[in-house]
Amino acid sequence: MAISILRPSISLPQHFLNSMNPQKFSSISVITKKHSFLHCVASDSAPSPSRQEMSLSVGMYLIPHPNKVEKGGEDAFFVSSDNGEVIVVADGVSGWAEKNVDPALFSRELVANVSSLVGNVEVNDDPRILIKGAHAATSSIGSATVIVSVFKNGILKIASVGDCGLRVIRKGQMIFSTFPLEHYFDCPYQLSSEAVTQTYLDAIVSTVNLQVGDTIIMGSDGLFDNIFDQEIVSVVTTNDDVSNTVV
Amino acid sequence: MAISILRPSISLPQHFLNSMNPQKFSSISVITKKHSFLHCVASDSAPSPSRQEMSLSVGMYLIPHPNKVEKGGEDAFFVSSDNGEVIVVADGVSGWAEKNVDPALFSRELVANVSSLVGNVEVNDDPRILIKGAHAATSSIGSATVIVSVFKNGILKIASVGDCGLRVIRKGQMIFSTFPLEHYFDCPYQLSSEAVTQTYLDAIVSTVNLQVGDTIIMGSDGLFDNIFDQEIVSVVTTNDDVSNTVV
Repeated sequence: MAISILRPSISLPQHFLNSMNPQKFSSISVITKKHSFLHCVASDSAPSPSRQEMSLSVGMYLIPHPNKVEKGGEDAFFVSSDNGEVIVVADGVSGWAEKNVDPALFSRELVANVSSLVGNVEVNDDPRILIKGAHAATSSIGSATVIVSVFKNGILKIASVGDCGLRVIRKGQMIFSTFPLEHYFDCPYQLSSEAVTQTYLDAIVSTVNLQVGDTIIMGSDGLFDNIFDQEIVSVVTTNDDVSNTVV
Repeated sequence: MAISILRPSISLPQHFLNSMNPQKFSSISVITKKHSFLHCVASDSAPSPSRQEMSLSVGMYLIPHPNKVEKGGEDAFFVSSDNGEVIVVADGVSGWAEKNVDPALFSRELVANVSSLVGNVEVNDDPRILIKGAHAATSSIGSATVIVSVFKNGILKIASVGDCGLRVIRKGQMIFSTFPLEHYFDCPYQLSSEAVTQTYLDAIVSTVNLQVGDTIIMGSDGLFDNIFDQEIVSVVTTNDDVSNTVV
């Protein structure tokens, strides 16, 4: 099922917390790997112009791996209710299934913990501090890659551990991309329940200034490993409505 | 000729302003297009630890197009004397030669004007404002693509108009890249002496948090159009000394 907010919609009725409601999402098996992404468009309408000039229209979709459809996949994502001011995507590391641990538990709890930190003054709009706090609060066994973005005053702040990703498209051209970090092939940097693990200090931290009309694509490696960037640009450019793109 | 500062060198003896001294640079004809780049490595040594924890060791090189060797090419670059706190690369648009205008004039004056603005309190460490001021002060006929970076407190701020570029490499992996913006193939966004042109408002603005040991590659499209990113990563990874990499 697609959850989409049409441009220039400006406020989401509530937090969309997939990690808490995996049953809300169905699958499409066109793509064989797990595949979740968020698609956001910056617009110049805002519920509170005094607070910020731009807001985001958000569409989102989750396509679990065909073998993981019943459980809702192992990805989790969250979009805060204030026009996508905070967005997080986490991807549970599937190797934990070999140890009879559900890889979805860690990613879902991690994302839930990010959501509970939104608005905390100590976070101070810093996505890396959101990762730090959420990781510390997560007690599930497992590990996950994660990307967190915070949008404020026209600037998108991003912190990423591992191979979740984000792209920004402007006027039919890609103007920004995150990059994955991995120890070796198919072993990305990850937050974990284990003592020896990456932390928020290992996050790649960056920002990009957005303009009205920019499109942001966030997702797990299931998206970016299966679709070339130029295909993403093409789809986004030919669909100027968020809801059309995500479905 | 290579100008290189070995890691962990911490201060340059003076501003390296290629735009004012093009004769200082010779060419190597391995690469057939114009090809200039800067290679910087973040280190934890600094002349004034109280001011910033990290500084940059800088190496630089210019390889003009073989047909432009005698005039020193049409690129220009500048590195401020305070450990590369401000770095700029500009690339004169060669099409002006068809109008009997030397394409190097605009890029060199633009870069010189950036250098004269370094330290101006109104710039406030903002690379976009550096572009704004330098463009306004440039009276030469012509146009140029340009990228400006400002490094302070561990954060690299970047503003780019057109197809000059910047890469950051960490532990053998690319973690950050700028992207070119163009109107159509081979016609990049550019600052110009013409009234109808791009301005600082068209710059792609981004930041990336650096860690000690990161390597930054900045250059004109002559570098990035001729060398794949994975080749750049390979060269940088196998040469941990800035001077080895740039020669």
